[in-house]
Amino acid sequence: MNQITIIGLGHIGGSFAKDIRERGLATRIIGVENNEIHATQALELGLVDLVLPMSEALLEADLVLLTIPVDAMLQVLPGILDQVNANQTVMDAGSTKEALIESVKDHAMRSRYVASHPMAGRENSGPGAAISGLFEGKCSVICNREGSASDAVARVIELYEALGMRIVELEAHEHDLHAAYVSHISHISSFALALTVLAKEKDEKRIFQLASGGFDSTVRLAKSSPDMWVPIFRQNRDNVLDVLDEHINVLSRFRSLLIKKDFNTFHELIDQANHIRKILK
Amino acid sequence: MNQITIIGLGHIGGSFAKDIRERGLATRIIGVENNEIHATQALELGLVDLVLPMSEALLEADLVLLTIPVDAMLQVLPGILDQVNANQTVMDAGSTKEALIESVKDHAMRSRYVASHPMAGRENSGPGAAISGLFEGKCSVICNREGSASDAVARVIELYEALGMRIVELEAHEHDLHAAYVSHISHISSFALALTVLAKEKDEKRIFQLASGGFDSTVRLAKSSPDMWVPIFRQNRDNVLDVLDEHINVLSRFRSLLIKKDFNTFHELIDQANHIRKILK
Repeated sequence: MNQITIIGLGHIGGSFAKDIRERGLATRIIGVENNEIHATQALELGLVDLVLPMSEALLEADLVLLTIPVDAMLQVLPGILDQVNANQTVMDAGSTKEALIESVKDHAMRSRYVASHPMAGRENSGPGAAISGLFEGKCSVICNREGSASDAVARVIELYEALGMRIVELEAHEHDLHAAYVSHISHISSFALALTVLAKEKDEKRIFQLASGGFDSTVRLAKSSPDMWVPIFRQNRDNVLDVLDEHINVLSRFRSLLIKKDFNTFHELIDQANHIRKILK
Repeated sequence: MNQITIIGLGHIGGSFAKDIRERGLATRIIGVENNEIHATQALELGLVDLVLPMSEALLEADLVLLTIPVDAMLQVLPGILDQVNANQTVMDAGSTKEALIESVKDHAMRSRYVASHPMAGRENSGPGAAISGLFEGKCSVICNREGSASDAVARVIELYEALGMRIVELEAHEHDLHAAYVSHISHISSFALALTVLAKEKDEKRIFQLASGGFDSTVRLAKSSPDMWVPIFRQNRDNVLDVLDEHINVLSRFRSLLIKKDFNTFHELIDQANHIRKILK
């Protein structure tokens, strides 16, 4: 491919840029980035060849990749589709899919857009957090492909496969539900755990010293940016609420078992939780 | 040191054995292990030179290391102190300290016992899960050292430092409180998260495919053994209940903000949670 334009040069956009460069998947990588510090950093790191204003950046792009917070995507996607032609493809890498697809469902150029969600990412932000091989071996979800032109879908799948990803297809509503289960609730749980410990544990030095007891693992996601995550929780509110209710119920059950000192049932529940071992690697 | 006797050849005991062997810290490593499959496995893996019944294993030991579930420790520690002499040292690596110290506080040989908790460990169990360098760079807590003979404390510190650990000293009650904050609540949260997702997500293939979205990190601890963890929750029940209440409160606050669609406050709370980044590496 001749030119790829990446809109949003943060952790995800930057990691795409790195892999695309290293694997020779595009001759030219153009960035769009409103944050001037990030733009400068991305150029210094060699992530992109050039940073341009949106309209210019779209002109020659074979593929336009949206890697900005999902609320910003809702704002810019229709305008991007206004400017592309039938030889160009637009894709996003957002964590919620239903609202975004809905926002362009009647757009004349809807078929040039491919909705996707690569299930990869770390808790760090900005172009400095871009890493090679982030997507290798992970899954990418493509949603509602029937709304996209087959050549556009083929181009997006080709990119993901070149990054080492497996493709899963899901209807957008299904995607958002599954994402609430296996990703969004984990983040809420981790944010809550960090707040719990910060509230209770006044001696921060102790947290640091003792954190290898498991805390560092469960709280890793609590370092994630609110600018990225609040829009996700807003768009996927109903599903997240549903899973959060269930999670609070399970914790309340543990609480009740501790109060009653019913350690046999506690043991049985942990046995059930261990079943996750058979599902995850 | 001539002989070290390790009681319990699981993940922790086996990892001690590996490092002690590789770093040449003892001439002979003797194991005590009631589970015959684990005993055979530990011998096959070369973790220990010999597996012996408890009384025989104690006879020639310079250092006796207890690495069994904390309820079993309560059962065997007094009997072990009955059998040791003033040249021998007994230490444990349990995750709770107050009950164990209390159980031997009037024992004639109390001063030969050193209470400790190395803050290291993975979610896997058994001698097959033993790994080299598990303790390197982590903290080990020594509790109530004023109850232990100074030569016994020196021997334990020498071992931990030879494994690359830093020493922290805490009073037992303080230890158990901190451990509830930074370790025990993380495990309960993770067990609950696994149960939540297993209950809600009937399509297990999807969990597996999409788990890289954060779930794999927060749910790692849910693979931990109930035989190890239920005794910890039993002994540290009051502290764990206290932290669990707070954790449920924070999650309920998130729930309420979602219901009210108060995403500004949600954003502020995540900003606060991000503060954990400054404390953890």
